[in-house]
Amino acid sequence: MNLPPEFALIARHFRPLAGQGGLDLSDDAALLTLPPGRELVLAADAMVAGVHFLPSDPAETIGRKLLRVNLSDLAAMGADPLAYLLSDALPRTTPDAWLAGFVAGLAQDQAEFGLQVLGGDTVSTPGPVSLSLTILGTVAPGQALRRNGARPGDALWVSGTIGDGALGLRAARGEIDNAYLADRYRLPQPRLALGRALRGLATACMDVSDGLVQDLGHLCRASGCGAVLEAARVPLSPAAHGAELGLLLTGGDDYELLFALPPGVPAPDMAATRIGHFTYGAPDVLVLDEQGQPMALAAQGWSHF
Amino acid sequence: MNLPPEFALIARHFRPLAGQGGLDLSDDAALLTLPPGRELVLAADAMVAGVHFLPSDPAETIGRKLLRVNLSDLAAMGADPLAYLLSDALPRTTPDAWLAGFVAGLAQDQAEFGLQVLGGDTVSTPGPVSLSLTILGTVAPGQALRRNGARPGDALWVSGTIGDGALGLRAARGEIDNAYLADRYRLPQPRLALGRALRGLATACMDVSDGLVQDLGHLCRASGCGAVLEAARVPLSPAAHGAELGLLLTGGDDYELLFALPPGVPAPDMAATRIGHFTYGAPDVLVLDEQGQPMALAAQGWSHF
Repeated sequence: MNLPPEFALIARHFRPLAGQGGLDLSDDAALLTLPPGRELVLAADAMVAGVHFLPSDPAETIGRKLLRVNLSDLAAMGADPLAYLLSDALPRTTPDAWLAGFVAGLAQDQAEFGLQVLGGDTVSTPGPVSLSLTILGTVAPGQALRRNGARPGDALWVSGTIGDGALGLRAARGEIDNAYLADRYRLPQPRLALGRALRGLATACMDVSDGLVQDLGHLCRASGCGAVLEAARVPLSPAAHGAELGLLLTGGDDYELLFALPPGVPAPDMAATRIGHFTYGAPDVLVLDEQGQPMALAAQGWSHF
Repeated sequence: MNLPPEFALIARHFRPLAGQGGLDLSDDAALLTLPPGRELVLAADAMVAGVHFLPSDPAETIGRKLLRVNLSDLAAMGADPLAYLLSDALPRTTPDAWLAGFVAGLAQDQAEFGLQVLGGDTVSTPGPVSLSLTILGTVAPGQALRRNGARPGDALWVSGTIGDGALGLRAARGEIDNAYLADRYRLPQPRLALGRALRGLATACMDVSDGLVQDLGHLCRASGCGAVLEAARVPLSPAAHGAELGLLLTGGDDYELLFALPPGVPAPDMAATRIGHFTYGAPDVLVLDEQGQPMALAAQGWSHF
C-alpha cells in the first residue's frame, strides 16, 4: 500500500510523535516556552538516500540515524536535547509500511533521548528520499562547548572508537560480514553524557563526522593552533583491528567527540582516549605513525561535494 | 563552473549570511539567547524542484520563496521573525552561479525581513534540488494566533487576493503571458504586519497555502465549527478576473491570511475582505455562488501526495 493523502498521512504517522508545543501538528507553527535562564542550541543536518544512508537500510534505523547525527551536534556543544522539526521529501511510491517503520524508529529514540517533535513538512519528490532535521537543545548561558578554545599544550582526546563508521558502511553494503560494524554505521551513539561532563572542563569540543583528521583540522583552524595526532593511540574497536589505518582516520560517520583538555586535567570517567596534543603554529594536523614518522594520507576526510 | 568543495562552498556562499548566533557557521551548532519574556514560534517547510518551484525559475527567487512561505507561517501565528536554518541538497552539477544567485536572494530577504541564518547543512543529491528551511519567530506569551478559536457567528476574512498563485504557476510555465501573476507565484508576500495587527483581535488565523476551500476546512476542524464561504465576495486581482472560479478557490500558493473576527469587529486597516462566516454544526465548508446556491468543486485543494 502506498502513502495516504498528505493530511491523513500526517495524522496517522506523525501526530502521535508530537509533543505539547507541537499543537498536534495541526497549526501553522509550533509554540515553545524555553526553560528560564537557558540558551538555545540549534543545528540542522540533512540525509539523502544513496548518499548518507543506503536505500536498503531498515526504515527503523534511518530516522534514528538522522536524529542521532543531530544529537551528536548537541553533544558536541554540551547541550541537553529539547525538541526537533523534521522535513521529509518522499517518492510517491513510498510504501506506507516504510513510513510506519521510519516513524517507529523516531518514536523509540524520542523516548530514549527525551525529545518531542514540534513540526515539519512532508512533501513528494521525483528523486530519492531526502530528509532534513533541525534539532533544538539548551545549555546554561556561557556553558556551551565551542571549537575555538584549544590552546597549544592542551591534550587532544577522542571518545569511543574511530573508523567503525567507515567500515560499517562496507558492512551495510554487504562487502564485509560484520553486524557490529553495520550497526555502528546505522545507529551512531551520540555522546550526550560525555558532552555534559565536559562543560567547564574542555577548552574545545566538536563531533567527528567527516573523518578524524579533517575534523581535527577544523578544530585547529577555529582555535588558531596546530595539532599532533599520534595514530597508534587512536582507539579502535576489535572489529577494526587490521583494517587500513588511513581509512579509519579519514572515513566518516564516527560521531565521536573530539576535545581538548588543559594539560594534566583528566578526562571524565567515560570511554575516552588521549590521542595527541595541540601545538603553536599554523592550524595544520601532523599525523605521526607508531615510529613517530609523519604519515601520508590519501585524503583528509569526506566532502559532500 | 561547478560547486567548490563543501567547506569552501559554505565559507564563500553561506558564511556572509550568518548572524551573531550562527558562530560563522563554523561550530557544531548555533547559540541563541531569546529576548526575555518571549515565546518561541517554529515552523519548517520544504520545497523540491519540479514540485514546489520550476527548475527554470530564477535562482534568486527560489531562496526568497522558501523564506517567504516560512515567514507566512509566522505571519499566521502573529509572530515576529527572528532567524532560520537552511538545509539544501544540490546536484553535484549545480553551477556555482546558481548558488550565488540563490544566496543573493536570501540575503535580500534577510535584510527586508530582519532575519539571520543560524546554521544548516549542504549536501549532494542524485535527485532534484531539495530545500528545507526551519524558521524561528517570537511572540509575547499567550499572544500567538491559533487555528482553533473561531466561533459560530464570527466573520470570515481573507487578506490580499486569492488565486494568483495558481494562475501564476501557469504564467511561470509560460502557459499564460502575465508577469504580475508569475511574480505572485515566485515571490509570495508574507502578511507579517497584518498578523501582528490581528493579535488580540482575531479568534483564529492561518495562512492559505494549499487552496482556500481546503485550508478553510482545516480551520473549521481545528475550531469545531462550520463555515459558509461566499464565492462572489472572494477578492480577485484584475489579472485573475475571468479565470475559472473553481481553480482560484482551490489552487495553492496564495500565502494570504485567512482569519476569524467576532461579529461587528472591523478588520485592521489593511487589505482584507470579509468572505463569509462561521456556523454551528459539522466542520464542513459550504461554498455559495453569486445566487446563493452551493457550488460544486472538482477538488478542495492541493495534496502533496
